[in-house]
Amino acid sequence: MRTVTAYAAPSATEPLVKTTIDRRDVGPKDVMIDIAYAGICHSDIHTVRGEWGEIQYPQVVGHEIVGTVTEVGAEVTKHKVGDRVGVGCMVNSCRECEYCLRGEEQYCAEGNIGTYTGVDPADGTITQGGYSQAIVVTEDFVLRVPESLDVEKVAPLLCAGITLYSPLHHWKAGPGTKVAIVGLGGLGHMGVKIAAALGAEVTVLSQTTSKKDDSMRFGATAHSATSDPETFTTLANSFDLIINTVSAKVDMGAYLGLLKVDGTLVNVGAPSEPLEVPAFALIPGRRSWAGSAIGGIRETQEMLDFCAEHGILPETELISADQINEAYERVLRSDVRYRFVIDAATLA
Amino acid sequence: MRTVTAYAAPSATEPLVKTTIDRRDVGPKDVMIDIAYAGICHSDIHTVRGEWGEIQYPQVVGHEIVGTVTEVGAEVTKHKVGDRVGVGCMVNSCRECEYCLRGEEQYCAEGNIGTYTGVDPADGTITQGGYSQAIVVTEDFVLRVPESLDVEKVAPLLCAGITLYSPLHHWKAGPGTKVAIVGLGGLGHMGVKIAAALGAEVTVLSQTTSKKDDSMRFGATAHSATSDPETFTTLANSFDLIINTVSAKVDMGAYLGLLKVDGTLVNVGAPSEPLEVPAFALIPGRRSWAGSAIGGIRETQEMLDFCAEHGILPETELISADQINEAYERVLRSDVRYRFVIDAATLA
Repeated sequence: MRTVTAYAAPSATEPLVKTTIDRRDVGPKDVMIDIAYAGICHSDIHTVRGEWGEIQYPQVVGHEIVGTVTEVGAEVTKHKVGDRVGVGCMVNSCRECEYCLRGEEQYCAEGNIGTYTGVDPADGTITQGGYSQAIVVTEDFVLRVPESLDVEKVAPLLCAGITLYSPLHHWKAGPGTKVAIVGLGGLGHMGVKIAAALGAEVTVLSQTTSKKDDSMRFGATAHSATSDPETFTTLANSFDLIINTVSAKVDMGAYLGLLKVDGTLVNVGAPSEPLEVPAFALIPGRRSWAGSAIGGIRETQEMLDFCAEHGILPETELISADQINEAYERVLRSDVRYRFVIDAATLA
Repeated sequence: MRTVTAYAAPSATEPLVKTTIDRRDVGPKDVMIDIAYAGICHSDIHTVRGEWGEIQYPQVVGHEIVGTVTEVGAEVTKHKVGDRVGVGCMVNSCRECEYCLRGEEQYCAEGNIGTYTGVDPADGTITQGGYSQAIVVTEDFVLRVPESLDVEKVAPLLCAGITLYSPLHHWKAGPGTKVAIVGLGGLGHMGVKIAAALGAEVTVLSQTTSKKDDSMRFGATAHSATSDPETFTTLANSFDLIINTVSAKVDMGAYLGLLKVDGTLVNVGAPSEPLEVPAFALIPGRRSWAGSAIGGIRETQEMLDFCAEHGILPETELISADQINEAYERVLRSDVRYRFVIDAATLA
């Protein structure tokens, strides 16, 4: 067992505080990772505040983790001491169901084991996330992080990156397809970069035009304001694929009307209330509304390699651990361009 | 021009009455069809009552039409006098858009021309439907009706049949797939027969178990009551494809929970109000909710040939024209097993 410094939520209503947690001994198939950087995901905030269900406290969150292997178990073959590696939203799964067997552990029939708030099959404890100095993870859920990707910026690929890559890949964004990304935040900006690198023609649909220059810089060819009703007339029946990264209630009928026949709108953000969707927005164009959750381990590795090949990195703002609570408030105000990354060296 | 007897709605609030309408002269590419039978579709009722938008009166409805060719234009090559033919929900389309060019005229970018309440490109009049003695239709929108299919029963294939065949075919119902049909009415009972003939394992989800024997007779292997909450627990994560034929508001979250990962729920019935759908019902299983509208002309022909090959016919109750208004009331009470067909000989 190793005791490490971490930032934890003491309750749903208190700020995160510096504390220590215990990491288990490295088992035969485990990898010990000294964490270098951890991204801040909106899910972290929902989770610690109990907005996605009750949790046990204290709880350390963070599932965009990059670091260096410092110890490996006797049976580990995939990673070695000194390797740059990452951990995303999952640290295990049943490995036996049809979904695990086909490499889609995110849809594990038993439920995958989250990097935080999960029950660790290794020791029955509640998993604790990446706002900490080190983590122990079974080797199959540890990703290789290409050295060419700037280590200070790469962490958000492990959640924001794969969350967008997976639906873009699954629904075949590429040359000849028109893709819209709704919302230009932590998730959306990754979507623009990845969809453009896949060869799709990308439009950003953002509340205003204030981020238009950013959209273009990230690879979009158009940026339209959703506050302007004309956007929904001009762009009607335009897109093969729309990825909705917004977690608030939006006028789904209007967005579905932007799809071509056989087009798909995919939610990766989920508002807590149901959305009101008119069936008449789907039927006359055989349109689909779908959801997608992160990606499997194999696909996450593929995404990291794809990002290395195309030089894709998130836009990040580096903060020290004592700025986490302030960063949370800024995330809630959408005052971040586009992802906070915690420098784990400041946890000491 | 030919004047024929028909049953028309004089207004949104009055019963249908016997009247006459004029059918245009047969143009070079037109076919004149003496109508033998016409099915009654729930859409007919919505339309004449103005529930799907204002229409002009008097209006003749009916888009499940079977009859015999009695005259053909000089350039007609696909049909000849004496052929048994059918007409479904469309009588024309732009023929130039990408959807028409790929044979999916139902999704015509300009909007297809409905068999009733459409504007006929031939003469600018409002199209009048199948509750009449004859109809003139451009040959490309006339289907061949195999002689082996009982002419008294076949008409509902032209709407109810294709409305179910198209999504079952598009989403690949077949051997090894588990399909659920929600609602065992005019649409649903066709879905069971077609899905079973395609080789899928079919479950009927109906409010009660009262129609269970019918489900089994039509080819289902299971029938569950949606009024029993346990149905949604027992059948969770079970289906590759669910076709929802119910036009009322249902608990979409519960139905989506019955889909496997990557499963699709397809609405072919559309409630007038939006449905409330939790995004969390889609995201964790990459599930989709889609819509589908009838089918293209080529696919409708394929469906008729498939039904002939497999001996599939709707269950019908034959009525005379003077029973149409009573039949409408019975449709609204779901008191029909499973489709009314008007004997057009009784129009005289």
